[in-house]
Amino acid sequence: MAFCIPRGFRAAGVHCGLKRNPNKPDVALIVSDRPSTAAGVYTQNVVCAAPVRLDRQRTPSDSIRAVVVNSGNANACTGEQGDRDALQMAEWAAQACGADGSQVLVLSTGIIGELLPMDRIQRGIEAASSRLGSDEETFETAARGLLTTDSTHKIASDEVPLDAGPVRILGIAKGAAMIGPNMATMLAVILTDAVIDPQTAQQLLATATDDTFNCISVEGHVSTNDSVVLLANGASGTDVSAGREKDLFTTGLCHVCEDLARAIPSDGEGATHLITIEIHGCANRENARRIAKTVANSPLVKTAIAGADPNWGRIVSAAGYAGVQFDPMMVSLHVNGLLLYERGVPVPFDGAKVSQSIRDHRDTSIVLLFSEGSSSARFWTSDLTAEYVRLNADYHT
Amino acid sequence: MAFCIPRGFRAAGVHCGLKRNPNKPDVALIVSDRPSTAAGVYTQNVVCAAPVRLDRQRTPSDSIRAVVVNSGNANACTGEQGDRDALQMAEWAAQACGADGSQVLVLSTGIIGELLPMDRIQRGIEAASSRLGSDEETFETAARGLLTTDSTHKIASDEVPLDAGPVRILGIAKGAAMIGPNMATMLAVILTDAVIDPQTAQQLLATATDDTFNCISVEGHVSTNDSVVLLANGASGTDVSAGREKDLFTTGLCHVCEDLARAIPSDGEGATHLITIEIHGCANRENARRIAKTVANSPLVKTAIAGADPNWGRIVSAAGYAGVQFDPMMVSLHVNGLLLYERGVPVPFDGAKVSQSIRDHRDTSIVLLFSEGSSSARFWTSDLTAEYVRLNADYHT
Repeated sequence: MAFCIPRGFRAAGVHCGLKRNPNKPDVALIVSDRPSTAAGVYTQNVVCAAPVRLDRQRTPSDSIRAVVVNSGNANACTGEQGDRDALQMAEWAAQACGADGSQVLVLSTGIIGELLPMDRIQRGIEAASSRLGSDEETFETAARGLLTTDSTHKIASDEVPLDAGPVRILGIAKGAAMIGPNMATMLAVILTDAVIDPQTAQQLLATATDDTFNCISVEGHVSTNDSVVLLANGASGTDVSAGREKDLFTTGLCHVCEDLARAIPSDGEGATHLITIEIHGCANRENARRIAKTVANSPLVKTAIAGADPNWGRIVSAAGYAGVQFDPMMVSLHVNGLLLYERGVPVPFDGAKVSQSIRDHRDTSIVLLFSEGSSSARFWTSDLTAEYVRLNADYHT
Repeated sequence: MAFCIPRGFRAAGVHCGLKRNPNKPDVALIVSDRPSTAAGVYTQNVVCAAPVRLDRQRTPSDSIRAVVVNSGNANACTGEQGDRDALQMAEWAAQACGADGSQVLVLSTGIIGELLPMDRIQRGIEAASSRLGSDEETFETAARGLLTTDSTHKIASDEVPLDAGPVRILGIAKGAAMIGPNMATMLAVILTDAVIDPQTAQQLLATATDDTFNCISVEGHVSTNDSVVLLANGASGTDVSAGREKDLFTTGLCHVCEDLARAIPSDGEGATHLITIEIHGCANRENARRIAKTVANSPLVKTAIAGADPNWGRIVSAAGYAGVQFDPMMVSLHVNGLLLYERGVPVPFDGAKVSQSIRDHRDTSIVLLFSEGSSSARFWTSDLTAEYVRLNADYHT
């Protein structure tokens, strides 16, 4: 995998003993050589983890120096000791780069309801600080330090050519589902060497997240730890806070976020298909998203795709209970580019051909057309297989 | 099974060829010997079937004489021909009891997107009209005429003792999930010989449904055909439209609806547990219901119960994303009467004991306590097993 690394960042991933397998890194440290603009978007769950509470206070910011991540323990539902532990992790990470404890963001994912083994965390952060590097391999190891049940690490990058010189964007992410009392989570860290002010960074990250990380699901269960953080250290010297630079940078940022976001349901537990749901012709974007999300979260739609079943009835009826009014006699549906339903009635189609098309491709496209307006939305989800149920029902037995 | 039959009603169930198995009735006819008060509650799905559109126009009413039901074909997404077919079914049923076509309600469930085979339907209604009876066996056969993937028929009844003499309530229902392009559905027909005016009947049915049929889910997919209709023919001579009679009748009606409603997720496709979720201490009923429904529809909660996993993290975090604000440090959780989580933190508990308790009982109780107020809600759902996925993914293959 070739990706571009923004200037002025170093990273490391190490194993400290939170995961059983010694080949799997469970601590990642990312350091900027100068204070960075930082923005963050976090879980909407009322029950949120200690590191989420910490980072929420600290972003947006103009002085973040590092992000420290652990996997294997979510530091969630751990009371006041959990808050103290998150602060302590930030302190140790700050020491590793000569910064103040308040200049660090903390991310955690893994088991909930258990206190962090702080001795291991400390050794892990110390080991990571001695291995910081800026080559692809170290960033890849850092990306692996975020994973829980993921089958593969997730990295995306973009280089945005601007008149004043290129800026680079690199994102790493994790997420496959929630497993419990382990609780997986969606975590992403986006790095860029662009110059950008904190308010603009926060606004751009919120926009990019809204169309990408907020448009994915595996089973629709919202984690206690979901976090996306952006660090912009300005090492490129190119300012993207306004004008054409801002537009081009936003496109690049959305591109990186979309690549990472899609990778999550694609790697969903037990998933055999990545389903992309496109909704067109709604009165407004909120309606389009609501329908897209309802179709994405219907277990009957997800099992139909797992079974390569061109089941237009489940898709159309899922749209019907999204809580959005529409004229059912104007609805049309394409699956993998094939028309199954037009203006409120099923059309004759070759079921075996559609079924074969679903079976032969990991990507499934569902496109629903309405006639209420011109707003669209897109949503990505995984199919629902017996393997997913097995993974989540038999976890303890 | 012993149940009480309201006076003045006759019923029949016959096989007309919508289902393959000739031993399975697929047409049911229920006739009142006099014009009845009728009320109805129907699916909220924007995409709704022809019989739903018909019945919605006809209820509440003071002159309904019959309900005709077919299973095996939902008459949904069938355009204007579907509307004509539903009207025609009503006409034939009316002839069977010497009524006008406008005095009949129609219910359908089964495959969507296919026109009804009207010749078979006609033969079925004629055969049913010649077999009308008022004994338990004929009502049971009629109840079986509603079923699709259900493993068993669902009947509940109550006799309400009133000063002016008893009134009887009998309900029959079907529902196990949606399978497709078959689409199962929740249908229920409630009969009573009480005297009651249409507006009161409609209001009582809406109230009873709200706390029972609207508080169940199998996988959360809302059908195009869901319908609950109530016929009150007044044959007992006892008026229940007001006062103490109304209160006692309402209790009986809720009792019958709850018995039928619980029977649906209990018979959910592939289900090994009926899960009852109780929420207490919310600011209002709407918040309590929202939390109950979100926990009920979390695939991670449903797979945990299937796996007998005392997974408090999934339950508490599902409550957290219901869109209701609460103090997470005041939440407590009991599963099957055992305390797992108290005031925001997990408590030490014997995991093997809780697990055994889930495994040993078909009924699982989840009780979540909040500290925002005094409102409660209850919701019933089934667990999610690999068998459910197999049934719904492999339906066509």
